[in-house]
Amino acid sequence: MTATPANTSELKPQGTMFIGAEPVTGTGTGIRSRNPNTGDELDPAYPTASPADVARACRLAEEAFDAYRTTHPWQRARFLERIAHHLTEAGDALVERARLETGLPTARLAGEVARTTGQLRMFAKVLCEGSWHGARIDPAQPERSPQPRPDIRQRRIPLGPVAVFGASNFPLAFSVLGGDTASALAAGCPVVVKAHEAHLGTSELAARAIRAAITDSGMPSGVFSLLVGEGHDTGTRLVADPHIQAVGFTGSRTAGRALIRAAAERPAPIPVYAEMSSINPVILLPGALAERPRALADAFTESLALGAGQFCTNPGLVIAVEGNGLDAFEARAADNIDNNSGATMLTPRIAESYRLATETVSDRPRVRVLARGGVPATASAGQALLLTVDGDDLCADPELQHEMFGAASLLVRCRDLNHVAEVLHALEGQLTATVHTADADLDDARALLPLLERRAGRVLFNNWPTGVEVGHAMVHGGPHPATSDARTTSVGSLAIDRFLRPVAYQNLPDTLLPPPLQDDNPYSIPRRIDGTLTLN
Amino acid sequence: MTATPANTSELKPQGTMFIGAEPVTGTGTGIRSRNPNTGDELDPAYPTASPADVARACRLAEEAFDAYRTTHPWQRARFLERIAHHLTEAGDALVERARLETGLPTARLAGEVARTTGQLRMFAKVLCEGSWHGARIDPAQPERSPQPRPDIRQRRIPLGPVAVFGASNFPLAFSVLGGDTASALAAGCPVVVKAHEAHLGTSELAARAIRAAITDSGMPSGVFSLLVGEGHDTGTRLVADPHIQAVGFTGSRTAGRALIRAAAERPAPIPVYAEMSSINPVILLPGALAERPRALADAFTESLALGAGQFCTNPGLVIAVEGNGLDAFEARAADNIDNNSGATMLTPRIAESYRLATETVSDRPRVRVLARGGVPATASAGQALLLTVDGDDLCADPELQHEMFGAASLLVRCRDLNHVAEVLHALEGQLTATVHTADADLDDARALLPLLERRAGRVLFNNWPTGVEVGHAMVHGGPHPATSDARTTSVGSLAIDRFLRPVAYQNLPDTLLPPPLQDDNPYSIPRRIDGTLTLN
Repeated sequence: MTATPANTSELKPQGTMFIGAEPVTGTGTGIRSRNPNTGDELDPAYPTASPADVARACRLAEEAFDAYRTTHPWQRARFLERIAHHLTEAGDALVERARLETGLPTARLAGEVARTTGQLRMFAKVLCEGSWHGARIDPAQPERSPQPRPDIRQRRIPLGPVAVFGASNFPLAFSVLGGDTASALAAGCPVVVKAHEAHLGTSELAARAIRAAITDSGMPSGVFSLLVGEGHDTGTRLVADPHIQAVGFTGSRTAGRALIRAAAERPAPIPVYAEMSSINPVILLPGALAERPRALADAFTESLALGAGQFCTNPGLVIAVEGNGLDAFEARAADNIDNNSGATMLTPRIAESYRLATETVSDRPRVRVLARGGVPATASAGQALLLTVDGDDLCADPELQHEMFGAASLLVRCRDLNHVAEVLHALEGQLTATVHTADADLDDARALLPLLERRAGRVLFNNWPTGVEVGHAMVHGGPHPATSDARTTSVGSLAIDRFLRPVAYQNLPDTLLPPPLQDDNPYSIPRRIDGTLTLN
Repeated sequence: MTATPANTSELKPQGTMFIGAEPVTGTGTGIRSRNPNTGDELDPAYPTASPADVARACRLAEEAFDAYRTTHPWQRARFLERIAHHLTEAGDALVERARLETGLPTARLAGEVARTTGQLRMFAKVLCEGSWHGARIDPAQPERSPQPRPDIRQRRIPLGPVAVFGASNFPLAFSVLGGDTASALAAGCPVVVKAHEAHLGTSELAARAIRAAITDSGMPSGVFSLLVGEGHDTGTRLVADPHIQAVGFTGSRTAGRALIRAAAERPAPIPVYAEMSSINPVILLPGALAERPRALADAFTESLALGAGQFCTNPGLVIAVEGNGLDAFEARAADNIDNNSGATMLTPRIAESYRLATETVSDRPRVRVLARGGVPATASAGQALLLTVDGDDLCADPELQHEMFGAASLLVRCRDLNHVAEVLHALEGQLTATVHTADADLDDARALLPLLERRAGRVLFNNWPTGVEVGHAMVHGGPHPATSDARTTSVGSLAIDRFLRPVAYQNLPDTLLPPPLQDDNPYSIPRRIDGTLTLN
């Protein structure tokens, strides 16, 4: 192990991209991230990638693919652990740079480093456990009549180089070395990341961690590139590159749809895993509202305002039946929002989008403003906002379902539980759906469950949707427009499935079979033999 | 069990569709299948579905969905077994009608009945085994610091109503009650089938079998509809219906792409599993050619001509290195094709498409005709054809990769094994890729394997690709344009995955959890507990 101790110059962003894990200075216009508090541009400038840079990153990824995917899974596990190691080493510098670029608080960012290294280590364990191979063996039946059955074996192989677009709101856990990259690398796919323009320095520092891990582990350098680009051009070119075989994206619906279109228009279309927009309905059942209206309001406004409301799972819609409980909840929630001092959002542009989105929704006929928070004196100020509307109006006006990415929520008043169900029926697909209950509500909750699970990727009881555990059972996904592919998750160990496809091998001699399918099970992995699952 | 004994009138096609499992006579123009031997139209006429019929079938499917998907998996298993039972009962009538409509021989069709009932019974077993639930439990960690971990559990639920488009070439195993329908019903999805125009009577008889099984098993009648339509309109309308949540299709690239487009243009796009086109490269390695050129030629021409060449896995491309072995193979294969008397294809239109496709490829510059078979005196005659071209020309001319659906194949002559690899590099995605070897070829075969598995869903050694086993390890799928989604298979037990998506349940009381996730594991299924797979 030749862990390169990071020297001081390595901890300062230099304005480079990485192509085939080598630092490269682009030749395009230099772009800069901004300090969202002051609005000032930050040093250094990042000259952007040329079309040739994009093509070269993708070609190197393709050239590295076969060597990388045929490494022993334990080697890839070690590689992921080394990335985690170097991320941890760079922790303070990463947190400091991310704080400058995103305005997120230090403690939150430190937590994000832990989450990012945690998910890399989780995938290392997944690689060793081996279920991800999807190994299946149907042994030959030479005596079968009327025709003998040949030996057929199945495993999953990685799709190929993956393009990753990081999210603005998790500069570490959902960005350069975030969940998409970790799961793609685990699957055996090289990764080409387009850096998020809002945190270029953080992206560069993270890229250095993987570069060091590539050196430590002797992995082919083409497994990782980081490209810098302005606007949609670089991203569209990346998705259109013939070597790219899948796309992971987290961001706006508009940007997501543009990438989906680019992927569909290729001569050979590829899957796009785009997480786009969700307003995460929270249903407050009558018993819960009667029992603890103010506690619910406090927990709700805390979840709503967390991180300036910049979570994909932010509770942007609250649905409840009218009555004293709801009145008490509303009064307390409105008070809390009134007293909220606001927060700096991730970028001036995101703050502006948020302002426009809240304006659009507030201006819809029949929407009433219940409370507005304060506005901090920063360049990217976000003002908390609580609106209300009647259930019938929500059903009638699809504009009211548009995500306001930030600390804004719409309280939907319903006549009764049937009305609640009607509103749920009218909703688009969501990442999460939450129900708050008291004991008396259990039967009502049971009746709503089939509806909730059809609308969302995760159903919560008496919890708040912000806070996404990285584990084996997590689903961070859901029906359109929450994501472009509800059959998967972008958080948790199941995310590796997105980058694999099954291949069957018929009548191959044992010596030519890939190790997961050889008779003596050299990887000691779970396999399905003639339909029966065997542990190892 | 109240198995309705089929009476005589029930075994004769009546010209009806089925909506919500009830026989319905359409109101559109009557369309008829044709006898491919004589070209004559067959009785009865099938009046087509109106837009309202399509909408009603989809609405009934949606209305049946929740009741159907929440049946105990064993009930659905019993349901699938009852369908198999009624199909077997109808066997002779089905085979006779299918023979009339498709020109396929009785023995082949009887085999197809067995295959169809076999795959229904396989999915019944899959339902009981229970891995398909994808159950995962991450128990709560109330003591975790800095924050307790909530209880999170995951299972998979069905997507919703599925539209199925049957294939022309498997009037039973890939049609109304074929693999797509069996896997969708197993997953818990209601199915709306568009009948293939070429075998309307067979479709109606098959629909009666499921209708009887619905009665036997007390399933909601909306789980099945069979619609009749002419041209693309009914199909496009079906795919665009908001209740439809996934599509299974087998057919031409043009029709597949039209459905993919319709699905992508919906306000909420849905997955399309389209199997479209594959030419199934077969590589004859030098040792194999030196050892057994004539035996290979005989087996090749037998595989090529089987069922008039109308298999998705037909060996439409043979790639080999020049030399005495290849000359001997070519001479023998050409002789066999010369002596082939031709066969009746499935429809006059398919025969015409085949004629046009072979004409197009034969007329390309640098393609040489090696042999043409005889032409039978039927209305849908297919003439076997063997062409040859140099490897460089194949790489240079994408037209040569167009599928000729029928008994035509293109022999590609290469200078050496590097040239073979170049040709493989130039190929589009395939359902299968086959290598024939002798002992001396094993190292060369090993070197080609990474390339083959990237191009195809199934890699075969010293077998022929026609003949697709229905088992647990089979993959009938592959990269575009073989299919629209290489991450899945349409044959074999893994096909159920296409119609499921994961949902996470956070902090639900045991009494509200779906049975696969309840603490005491009432279904006795394999589950992943905190990342560790447990059998039951």
